[in-house]
Amino acid sequence: MSSKITLALDAMGGDHGPSVVVPAALRYASANPDCSLVLVGQESALRAYLPDKGLPPRVSIRHAAEVVGMDESPASALRGKKDSSMRVAINMVKTGEADACVSAGNTGALMATARFVLKTIPGVDRPAIITALPAVEGRTWMLDLGANIDSNADHLLQFAVMGAELVTAVEGIAAPRVGLLNIGEEEIKGIESVKQAHVLLQNSGLNYVGYAEGDDVYLKEGLDIVVTDGFIGNVALKSSEGVAKMIRHFLSLEFKRNLLTWAVALLALPVLKNLKNRIDPRRYNGASLLGLRGIVVKSHGGADQFAFEQAIGIARKEVAADIANRITEMVASQLQHKASA
Amino acid sequence: MSSKITLALDAMGGDHGPSVVVPAALRYASANPDCSLVLVGQESALRAYLPDKGLPPRVSIRHAAEVVGMDESPASALRGKKDSSMRVAINMVKTGEADACVSAGNTGALMATARFVLKTIPGVDRPAIITALPAVEGRTWMLDLGANIDSNADHLLQFAVMGAELVTAVEGIAAPRVGLLNIGEEEIKGIESVKQAHVLLQNSGLNYVGYAEGDDVYLKEGLDIVVTDGFIGNVALKSSEGVAKMIRHFLSLEFKRNLLTWAVALLALPVLKNLKNRIDPRRYNGASLLGLRGIVVKSHGGADQFAFEQAIGIARKEVAADIANRITEMVASQLQHKASA
Repeated sequence: MSSKITLALDAMGGDHGPSVVVPAALRYASANPDCSLVLVGQESALRAYLPDKGLPPRVSIRHAAEVVGMDESPASALRGKKDSSMRVAINMVKTGEADACVSAGNTGALMATARFVLKTIPGVDRPAIITALPAVEGRTWMLDLGANIDSNADHLLQFAVMGAELVTAVEGIAAPRVGLLNIGEEEIKGIESVKQAHVLLQNSGLNYVGYAEGDDVYLKEGLDIVVTDGFIGNVALKSSEGVAKMIRHFLSLEFKRNLLTWAVALLALPVLKNLKNRIDPRRYNGASLLGLRGIVVKSHGGADQFAFEQAIGIARKEVAADIANRITEMVASQLQHKASA
Repeated sequence: MSSKITLALDAMGGDHGPSVVVPAALRYASANPDCSLVLVGQESALRAYLPDKGLPPRVSIRHAAEVVGMDESPASALRGKKDSSMRVAINMVKTGEADACVSAGNTGALMATARFVLKTIPGVDRPAIITALPAVEGRTWMLDLGANIDSNADHLLQFAVMGAELVTAVEGIAAPRVGLLNIGEEEIKGIESVKQAHVLLQNSGLNYVGYAEGDDVYLKEGLDIVVTDGFIGNVALKSSEGVAKMIRHFLSLEFKRNLLTWAVALLALPVLKNLKNRIDPRRYNGASLLGLRGIVVKSHGGADQFAFEQAIGIARKEVAADIANRITEMVASQLQHKASA
């Protein structure tokens, strides 16, 4: 059937490899009859996690002999592992055998390989990484999260264009509101690249709402996307994760203080579970590599089955929205816009 | 008595001005008999918050006619408000009438004025802002938080030297462990300035423990100080505040969901209060401007009485540790170290 979506999964990637990816694929395939999933990896390793009666419908195996290590350098993965599960999964996107691929493998190697195999969209200098974050109202998407450092104003504008297209596709928001990350101190009011990007964004035709500060990502209403350099985005993301984990640690410590607090914790379980659901990083798993001629979704390396399924879901939404082609068109129209400005 | 400490308080600064600063000063003075506090500001405005029987012991008033607005530009404050409470309080540090000053006024104006009046320590190119943050184990200090952007490797080294001296003074840690903020992606592993600072720090004689990522600030044991550029530090700090506020918002929302959860909230109050105490930003109020020939502490603009007292306490500790002179000596010895290297 031509309307079917085929997703290639790097089944060896991540901290848990096939023990997570295979069960996630089985469940996802059974719940989504319009999707076919290809498990890419060492066939014997994958078979260990498959049911005895063999492969269920719409799940297949593509053997790949090598595995990219979680700490392996991008250069080593790119040059030395041409038959890795990661590389083969990306190759399948290139050849059209798959509509997208999902990997929990290491980000550096994934970005380098995807960029080498798929190439960037014309007009995009640097691919970027984007993910959704929980917010007081709705969700906020942030990019870049570490693919680029020292981004200039043109790069930041490209991030905004790509991010807006993705959020439209995935969230169904027609004109997502874009903010540019900056700091509040009046004296300096941002670095040069940010000031220049501010002007570019004002003239971009995007729904640009101006500067946003670090706390706006989580608190400000009327903000769908926050654009920043990858070094800064990565620090913001990791700092946020750190604070959330610290609070969870202290909350757990306080509830375990004595028998009484233990009892209260039991009573409070539904409340705590609802809180956890709201900010559960597993629900937000699945970062997209944008700006490539093909769809690549990065799962968190430590993802469990539920989290990996979310990443598959993101890939599927991007395929359904034809995101790579839409970004190609948007970037081309931005280039025209700039040329005629 | 010569052993007495005199602190000048910008009583008009912050969102709440004298309504917070005056009561904080009264309580602090009564609890700390070795401290004299000078309330700097419009005398009539201050009198409104003083007891009818007049000034208590060790609290005095220094009239200053003008007030720097919370959104006023540093240039306007510096050039146009020579009799502002902020400026006069800093002047008192310059003339030796006060050992330190504390202001909840706007950061940009405070930094610009302090830098203009007090000047930087020889060998320090740029003053920096540092504060303590809660962490799973102990506290972590971070600088710079927004005074500098585009910091080069030498600046980052200076931040580390100054931060280490402050933490030794305030926390009593002999050789505080210094980390350098970076991102984890192997492919790029940091911007040039960070890579160069890494080498400088390895040869600095400081207790340098290597790169730290955003989450390490809150989670990593064996880390006392995290050094970074002000743009990045500001984003990290604000993002962290945003996440903490979002979690509090959701927790409150979930506890208010229905009568049962309300009841559980009542039972859980002691636990929630302990949690709040651990991460209460009021407890961490008081950021220090480092690298100046004098001690200036910045309180959060929205500080309440308790929080402002914490900022006064920081100033007092810095005076007791003679921090400005110690940093002067440390920077001089670093310069010698580098010259002989």
